[in-house]
Amino acid sequence: MSDKLAKKIAKSLHAGEKTSAAFGISLVDAGEGWARAAMKIRPDMVNGHNVAHGGLIFTLADTAFAWACNSRNVVTFAQHAAISFLSKVEPGETLTAEAREETAVGRTGVYTVRVSAEDGRVVATFQGLSRTAGGKVIEEEESKDEE
Amino acid sequence: MSDKLAKKIAKSLHAGEKTSAAFGISLVDAGEGWARAAMKIRPDMVNGHNVAHGGLIFTLADTAFAWACNSRNVVTFAQHAAISFLSKVEPGETLTAEAREETAVGRTGVYTVRVSAEDGRVVATFQGLSRTAGGKVIEEEESKDEE
Amino acid sequence: MSDKLAKKIAKSLHAGEKTSAAFGISLVDAGEGWARAAMKIRPDMVNGHNVAHGGLIFTLADTAFAWACNSRNVVTFAQHAAISFLSKVEPGETLTAEAREETAVGRTGVYTVRVSAEDGRVVATFQGLSRTAGGKVIEEEESKDEE
Amino acid sequence: MSDKLAKKIAKSLHAGEKTSAAFGISLVDAGEGWARAAMKIRPDMVNGHNVAHGGLIFTLADTAFAWACNSRNVVTFAQHAAISFLSKVEPGETLTAEAREETAVGRTGVYTVRVSAEDGRVVATFQGLSRTAGGKVIEEEESKDEE
Repeated sequence: MSDKLAKKIAKSLHAGEKTSAAFGISLVDAGEGWARAAMKIRPDMVNGHNVAHGGLIFTLADTAFAWACNSRNVVTFAQHAAISFLSKVEPGETLTAEAREETAVGRTGVYTVRVSAEDGRVVATFQGLSRTAGGKVIEEEESKDEE
Repeated sequence: MSDKLAKKIAKSLHAGEKTSAAFGISLVDAGEGWARAAMKIRPDMVNGHNVAHGGLIFTLADTAFAWACNSRNVVTFAQHAAISFLSKVEPGETLTAEAREETAVGRTGVYTVRVSAEDGRVVATFQGLSRTAGGKVIEEEESKDEE
Repeated sequence: MSDKLAKKIAKSLHAGEKTSAAFGISLVDAGEGWARAAMKIRPDMVNGHNVAHGGLIFTLADTAFAWACNSRNVVTFAQHAAISFLSKVEPGETLTAEAREETAVGRTGVYTVRVSAEDGRVVATFQGLSRTAGGKVIEEEESKDEE
Repeated sequence: MSDKLAKKIAKSLHAGEKTSAAFGISLVDAGEGWARAAMKIRPDMVNGHNVAHGGLIFTLADTAFAWACNSRNVVTFAQHAAISFLSKVEPGETLTAEAREETAVGRTGVYTVRVSAEDGRVVATFQGLSRTAGGKVIEEEESKDEE
């Protein structure tokens, strides 16, 4: 049930993200405290060294993080995030970011996101710190209607 | 002189960044060990909470960081970056990211980037760790031609 | 077998750490890519606000991280670490730090360390980036002798 | 005046830190939004690789950070910190940590700490995120008495 709600929340956030549409970020799956997002690196997503721009890899990870940390239907914002770039990514590769909650204490949550390529190599790891702001992300009524 | 070279390197990297064109990132100024980049938050740059997507604020900071850490004409990559989000950003605001070198030891460099809005408030701080890969970013000949 | 070697390496590092003796850090267990360390917060381990000093919580996490990232018998150093403090710790509490490898690519490793108290609450999360330097931590002969 | 108060606060925090006494951390100087602390690496402050333990370098930086972020006499705690280790430190070296405020927005502050050795090399950079808790660190009366 809560996984169902989490998925609806992720869908709703995804629909509101103009950047996700622009970058072709897709929602793979989501549940309570976790989410998976995917993105194909297009030729227009490179930096000045002709490899995938770190900013877009971060954006993919940050998107999965946002879905995961909002998954309990409390409006939650990123307050801090760190990313380690482990391997270069070529245009044409499809990346998957998997966010999972490490722990949550009070209003603070800690999430780890692993970004991997199709060949299985991990291209980046990301750690996000979230802070709940209060208020609902979506109306539960709305969520029941669709069940 | 080295500031002149730094600016040419930044221009060259900027020209190769497809993402900078897509996001409207402009090169404000650059010198040895520092760079400034600007970006206007468009209505299509929001997240699911209708404020500027953290991924794009990161991308702006990361771009200034890349220009600064490549400014001595040695190909250099980001290996780690951390960002703290301090204030929400509304569509329509123009952000400026100023990157400066904190220190460089061996192949590792440490950079701080401050991202501010037009009203002077700091919306994010970013810290980047770079690692030199070797090789030149641009041919110095090419840089002399234009002088 | 590799878990056996990992444990011997951790014991050897532990024996060489003067700080571990001073702080009463004990080796709980270790295996390939992971380690657990424990420390009781003594009354002399507080900061100016009379709670456990963040530096000592970091030291505990960093120690478990060092054991985990050296567990494959290649000399490895911490290059970067980040810690989030989630809950205050009182003198008298015993903390356990559990380090585990998230991923390793080339010479770089990424580790997550979770620091918890006896009552189960997570008091800090730590993320470490390691870099192999080469050379063995202990002689394998030495390790066989003891088997 | 505010620098004078800042120095009294640092002295008061320093006096309450049992760890500072144990590690020989001294207060070099402090003012509004900044502080400098020093520590000599003793032979009992090494890790299993026989160089200064990263945990103690962190503790020194964290101590300077604490003095700086409490310098306006509002009780403030570290919520997150990151450290990059740039150079090995030998026993016998004296390190100085200089903390300075990058920015403060609402209850959050961002601080950079640079840790250097006597020969001028930077051995670590540290970035701290603080959060005010409210309440005074010292009574202002007490601070006036001494003026």
